[in-house]
Amino acid sequence: MYDRVWTVRFSDTDPFGIAHYPRIVDALHETSDMFMQEIGFPFWEISQERGFGLPLVEMNFEFENPVEAGDDVTIELAPSLSTRSVRFEYVARCNGAVMFSGYEQRVCAQKDGGAIELPDDLRTAMEAYTDSRMK
Amino acid sequence: MYDRVWTVRFSDTDPFGIAHYPRIVDALHETSDMFMQEIGFPFWEISQERGFGLPLVEMNFEFENPVEAGDDVTIELAPSLSTRSVRFEYVARCNGAVMFSGYEQRVCAQKDGGAIELPDDLRTAMEAYTDSRMK
Amino acid sequence: MYDRVWTVRFSDTDPFGIAHYPRIVDALHETSDMFMQEIGFPFWEISQERGFGLPLVEMNFEFENPVEAGDDVTIELAPSLSTRSVRFEYVARCNGAVMFSGYEQRVCAQKDGGAIELPDDLRTAMEAYTDSRMK
Amino acid sequence: MYDRVWTVRFSDTDPFGIAHYPRIVDALHETSDMFMQEIGFPFWEISQERGFGLPLVEMNFEFENPVEAGDDVTIELAPSLSTRSVRFEYVARCNGAVMFSGYEQRVCAQKDGGAIELPDDLRTAMEAYTDSRMK
Repeated sequence: MYDRVWTVRFSDTDPFGIAHYPRIVDALHETSDMFMQEIGFPFWEISQERGFGLPLVEMNFEFENPVEAGDDVTIELAPSLSTRSVRFEYVARCNGAVMFSGYEQRVCAQKDGGAIELPDDLRTAMEAYTDSRMK
Repeated sequence: MYDRVWTVRFSDTDPFGIAHYPRIVDALHETSDMFMQEIGFPFWEISQERGFGLPLVEMNFEFENPVEAGDDVTIELAPSLSTRSVRFEYVARCNGAVMFSGYEQRVCAQKDGGAIELPDDLRTAMEAYTDSRMK
Repeated sequence: MYDRVWTVRFSDTDPFGIAHYPRIVDALHETSDMFMQEIGFPFWEISQERGFGLPLVEMNFEFENPVEAGDDVTIELAPSLSTRSVRFEYVARCNGAVMFSGYEQRVCAQKDGGAIELPDDLRTAMEAYTDSRMK
Repeated sequence: MYDRVWTVRFSDTDPFGIAHYPRIVDALHETSDMFMQEIGFPFWEISQERGFGLPLVEMNFEFENPVEAGDDVTIELAPSLSTRSVRFEYVARCNGAVMFSGYEQRVCAQKDGGAIELPDDLRTAMEAYTDSRMK
């Protein structure tokens, strides 16, 4: 699995002192971007140099516990691969507790919008981060 | 149902000319805020004056079609009421086509976090916007 | 002058109950986008159909008073025209008091980055909104 | 001086492939938050435990060069101290070139809004990061 630490900032928080949920979505989306860069297929390169992308078709998240400014939240991402799509599974923990979790369903699509199979090299790169507990 | 028009802005769009999905989530969340103001229970008042809120516990959205800068997207919100929670059901259309849809599940909670029943006056105010097709 | 009303949302506010300033910058930027659409030169059209843009080269804002959720803030925009650039002057008021004010300096640039003169039709469209008190 | 690296993300970029400027403002603001944490006075602690804050009263930025997805931008922050205020001076560089620069003027204010002198311990902590070239 891939993981990164997201530190909740004062500017993410609401009058109760907890993070506004659109800011949590920003952090989740940033994590997908960091993961794609980590595996050598940054979003900006695959769109410009390879002519395809991984647009989002569905997102489903549960918010188990609120997070506060200063919390160091470890966000894990495990890709779950299909032929023409990939599901990014997320679990975010702080001090051992799950704070939020869920998934993004993404399809592999050419710039013109048609779905294509995940390229072999991208598939191989993602497989190294697949959650073995799900196999 | 409640609805509002969201005009997609240049600053919402990506290198393909379509809206970044965190910006769509911003627009959905803004719609919940506008709805609560419309029915006389703005988020800022219920938290300060009544001591409760409607924190999000789950969100589930599907992105059927991309939206572009200049698109006037009509976002509909219909509340679906339970005893201690409410589901905000969203459908967003542009030129007759569904662009994205889904729901936010929200619980009624006191400031200290405990779930409470939806107050009667809030329930009555929301019922006026319930989707009659779902009754 | 052009003006629009920005309602501060709960999701814009911080633990003190006032708007995070990056959210104020979002509202100012949205205003520039709405203005360009109003005068018939939306940012998305001039970039795609005319091959130029108005990239920002400087911004300078003062925050005189904090704004809170529920505040209806009237943001005025008056363009101040030069040969190859335009300054968008902003004043934001709530209940008669100035809340924040400042300007964005924008240059007229071709897609490849070279500065060009403001096209005559754009100049004419903007002049209708010039603050006459500044002439 | 304090510095951090901001990697521009795909989700920060516009149809020209360059960062939307509100996303640059987000990155600058995040830098102020990281700096305050670094020196032991995180925004969330001083507001809750000490009862004061450093609200922004002015911001002034110049955007010398556009930044693109994948750019690793080093953002430097040097505080310039006055009795009741502090100016955060920023310079952001990528591959040796200045991409954007400017400052945030912040006052030291009690929760009720009155300006106070910068506490001695905060002043001492900031002085370690003062740009010696400005002394």
